[in-house]
Amino acid sequence: MGYRMTEGFVSLVGAGPGDPELLTIQAVRCLQAAELVLYDSLVAPEIVAEARQAQRFSVGKRAGHKSVSQETIIRVMVRAARRGRRVVRLKCGDPYVLGRGGEEALALHSAGIRFEVVPGLTTAVAAPTLAGIPLTHRGLASSFVVVSGHNEASFQPILHSLPVGKLTVIVLMGLARRAAIAACLLEQGWPGKTPAAIVFSSSTPSAHAWTGRLEDLGRVPYQAGANAPGTIIIGKVVDLRTVFGTSQDNAPSTVLEGKS
Amino acid sequence: MGYRMTEGFVSLVGAGPGDPELLTIQAVRCLQAAELVLYDSLVAPEIVAEARQAQRFSVGKRAGHKSVSQETIIRVMVRAARRGRRVVRLKCGDPYVLGRGGEEALALHSAGIRFEVVPGLTTAVAAPTLAGIPLTHRGLASSFVVVSGHNEASFQPILHSLPVGKLTVIVLMGLARRAAIAACLLEQGWPGKTPAAIVFSSSTPSAHAWTGRLEDLGRVPYQAGANAPGTIIIGKVVDLRTVFGTSQDNAPSTVLEGKS
Repeated sequence: MGYRMTEGFVSLVGAGPGDPELLTIQAVRCLQAAELVLYDSLVAPEIVAEARQAQRFSVGKRAGHKSVSQETIIRVMVRAARRGRRVVRLKCGDPYVLGRGGEEALALHSAGIRFEVVPGLTTAVAAPTLAGIPLTHRGLASSFVVVSGHNEASFQPILHSLPVGKLTVIVLMGLARRAAIAACLLEQGWPGKTPAAIVFSSSTPSAHAWTGRLEDLGRVPYQAGANAPGTIIIGKVVDLRTVFGTSQDNAPSTVLEGKS
Repeated sequence: MGYRMTEGFVSLVGAGPGDPELLTIQAVRCLQAAELVLYDSLVAPEIVAEARQAQRFSVGKRAGHKSVSQETIIRVMVRAARRGRRVVRLKCGDPYVLGRGGEEALALHSAGIRFEVVPGLTTAVAAPTLAGIPLTHRGLASSFVVVSGHNEASFQPILHSLPVGKLTVIVLMGLARRAAIAACLLEQGWPGKTPAAIVFSSSTPSAHAWTGRLEDLGRVPYQAGANAPGTIIIGKVVDLRTVFGTSQDNAPSTVLEGKS
């Protein structure tokens, strides 16, 4: 009765770090073909607007916005797909890096809904890259670790076991706990002079960065709310940002250089 | 004398994991505006072909191809930029993840050449995502580490210190040393039954995957040469690939399931 008999389909799509130019071609195509888009509210309006023919709903995931519950997001996706609609679940960064994308995929699988995952640029990589910080560099680091700063239980066991100074540490969602994050590494013997940076709102017009030392990380002042998007980067590679200076065109301006 | 007086410019551009659909919009624009493109030979011809107006040169970086030396790549870029040309250095994955992009940026900086970095999807994230393996998943892992498998010195200090089973381990360029990589983790007490996967040629038409256990990783047979692109993924999240099965449309076919 009005339900289309075509099979529905869900695309879990990574929206990248912010800049619409950093969408993939495949993400744009998915959005243009979508009939329903459920998007994280941090995704830029210009990106959401690519879905010209779709009903578009923000599902929150941002401080200060009332978020739609994970259960509701899943229920809406499943119902729409069962009605034969093309659904896009548009998520910040990459769908499978720290965003509960796996849970959404599991729920779709359990409901028997066909889906695909369209990878996106994760902020964990794009934020340092755009700030002029190579994640790896010969002689400085050939590995990097990406840690959630969401709570102590998520980062302590990892940060307490990393070999001192031997890899680049990237923390997402860790602004509010930056002092505890720094303390974890200092306790393990990481030198206080280890270079550190915070990139705020990477790849957006308001992108800016702090560069300093691990011992000062806990005291970095910032204007935005505690849940503003910020990426913490710790390791010797951070010094390359200073070397590049103004030769790199797309590095965000540094508002607080050196000690704070 | 025939030199243009406009200022040259170099874009270090990430070509992503392979599929031309996984280029960013910005990468496409850079290629379309380029006058000279120096590309890693693993980059797909369809991607290089976006640079319609450019002179295009493969600079190797692939087993069996004679590679142009790093010094020559840099010399050619600098000379072209000094002549006012728009140069794209097109690199696999992300320019600042394990690809000597930082060294190229430093050389450009030293030569006084303006440059930008256009991030790309790193295979470290895209390969698991496309294979149906979330890098993080509530209750399984909230962190991941990306390690170069290029030589023992690059991975041993890291793998020997990771907390057992608490994060997802991703190894790039580690196919040839997969036995030593597995041994490192097993020696540290990682259970032999820890799920493990290898994704070969991710996001290309010949993508395929092996899924099994850490204790079998060292004995996985494969047809391609020792330098074929392969991404090793170790951790509990790998089991989700099996759960998703055929509900995920873009997961590469698994050629070698279970024990080998």
